Amino acid sequence: MKIALLGFGTVGQKVAKILESRKNFYENKYGFSPEIVLVEDSNSQGYHTNGLNPKKLLERKEEKGDVGSGRKLDLNDVEFDVLVECTPTNLEDGEPGLSNILQSLELGRDVVTSNKGPLAIAWEELKQTSSKNDSILRYEATVGGAMPTINLAKDSLAGNKIKQIRGILNGTCNYILSRMRGGGLPYDHVLSEAQDLGIAEADPSYDVEGIDTALKIVILANSLLDFNVKYSDVDVTGITGITSEALDLANEENRVIKLIGKVNGDKLEVGPKMIPKNHPLAVKGTLNVASLKTDLAGEITITGKGAGASETASSIISDLISINRVRNFR
Amino acid sequence: MKIALLGFGTVGQKVAKILESRKNFYENKYGFSPEIVLVEDSNSQGYHTNGLNPKKLLERKEEKGDVGSGRKLDLNDVEFDVLVECTPTNLEDGEPGLSNILQSLELGRDVVTSNKGPLAIAWEELKQTSSKNDSILRYEATVGGAMPTINLAKDSLAGNKIKQIRGILNGTCNYILSRMRGGGLPYDHVLSEAQDLGIAEADPSYDVEGIDTALKIVILANSLLDFNVKYSDVDVTGITGITSEALDLANEENRVIKLIGKVNGDKLEVGPKMIPKNHPLAVKGTLNVASLKTDLAGEITITGKGAGASETASSIISDLISINRVRNFR
Repeated sequence: MKIALLGFGTVGQKVAKILESRKNFYENKYGFSPEIVLVEDSNSQGYHTNGLNPKKLLERKEEKGDVGSGRKLDLNDVEFDVLVECTPTNLEDGEPGLSNILQSLELGRDVVTSNKGPLAIAWEELKQTSSKNDSILRYEATVGGAMPTINLAKDSLAGNKIKQIRGILNGTCNYILSRMRGGGLPYDHVLSEAQDLGIAEADPSYDVEGIDTALKIVILANSLLDFNVKYSDVDVTGITGITSEALDLANEENRVIKLIGKVNGDKLEVGPKMIPKNHPLAVKGTLNVASLKTDLAGEITITGKGAGASETASSIISDLISINRVRNFR
Repeated sequence: MKIALLGFGTVGQKVAKILESRKNFYENKYGFSPEIVLVEDSNSQGYHTNGLNPKKLLERKEEKGDVGSGRKLDLNDVEFDVLVECTPTNLEDGEPGLSNILQSLELGRDVVTSNKGPLAIAWEELKQTSSKNDSILRYEATVGGAMPTINLAKDSLAGNKIKQIRGILNGTCNYILSRMRGGGLPYDHVLSEAQDLGIAEADPSYDVEGIDTALKIVILANSLLDFNVKYSDVDVTGITGITSEALDLANEENRVIKLIGKVNGDKLEVGPKMIPKNHPLAVKGTLNVASLKTDLAGEITITGKGAGASETASSIISDLISINRVRNFR
């Protein structure tokens, strides 16, 4: 499998590193032999038709900050089988991810992405382009990091109709709320602590205002419930208004406050909710959780780490192995 | 897809019922059009090369207690694509399931089963027969009912190495322990209550002595960790010695007692364990839970209903859809 890897930040680098370090394991276990033929970061490009050397790429990126000299090739001119798209999420227009993904799908190439923007902005177009060109689009890494929610629902629960989705889909918010409760600390204090620990961004609004959770709810609703919704269809409240007093009050009633994303009927919602302490959704720290209400299998709940380079790479690589399995059978 | 359905008890009947009732849904969503060509229960057989009518089959089974007149055909003489094996688990020699499954695999036909016996008894032989004949063997329904543990690990977490498995894999035991704790009731009382409710069998030893959990641990170890172990390799203790006093004592320390199955290093173990009340494994009632420690994705925990005809059928049908997806691509 020849891979074009667009985006070479922490996630892209981790993907390259893992594919290299467990080459033999994947080859022996799945007959999966990926070769990265193209790598691109924001200002440079590396290409070799027989595959680049991931070790050298990673070294060059660390030493020089680039992956090659300039950007010369368009995807049209590259021989590849699967695009791995891990450029940063852009909420304005989804670019450059959206164009990269559409172009690959139109070329009949499969795509694996960790980029939420294109999916949240242009779901219908992506779905149709993928179906028209018989290209596979997989995006497990966009929701819940390592927690395989989308593939769980689409593959392992394929016989079911999914009725409702609820979850904690942002580790930063969950860390802040867990820590405020555990330490009796005010929001601002915990936020700056989280920023020091690298759990929250310098500009935390994307997480704490519920935007990230809402994007994930949009992706889940579109892909698992056949909706056709956008970010603007979600009723969003973040956690910035939650006080430690509110958490104390909840605690007195054996409850916790969590930022819950939810699809119920045709309503999409993100907001702080009180839930019983021993409820399956009441996971702590940076953990994520998703609960799928199904018609045959009842309620299935999955918990795992919602973020991190290894965790995101795990989802991307599992998607690649799945594509390899399907295409090999052809 | 032409299906031979062996075993027409609660699970087999549920599979037939669901395949019939959501025919259009599966056809539209997955291009999955199953036809049951052969049905067999313990003393009768129904066959039609163009597919039997599930409604009539279910009616006949209810009215006459059979599915046809006698048993005439061997699998060798039947045109089918996939065997669905739901005869009862037999721990002595795995029969008749084992022979049914082996025969189908040798014929190059795919198999989906809910029958733990053959897998726990003859894993290596099944694995080799399946690989030699390029037949697919799927068995999600053998572990955790609706909770898709095996496919989660094999597909959605394919990029990972699984390091450790722990879980509550028997709903009967979990119900008894939860109820003893909640009601301060003695074991015998709760057991007979569970028998009245249909949660425990008349002879409960298979569940309460940990045998069922041990079989599931064997299946998970063999299929997810590439072990080659048998039931006799598991160190098994059941829950019959647990008193409500022990549960009270645990409760005072904010702990619960649960029957945990575990694969750690090369050690396989089933036994009652104390775990913190708010631990992800501390699920209540008849729920099952499995926790997979992975190298890239960290710990992934899944919770769901561990038993029930719909739940088991959900796993069988999801396996069928998966096979349909793979074979269609050929």
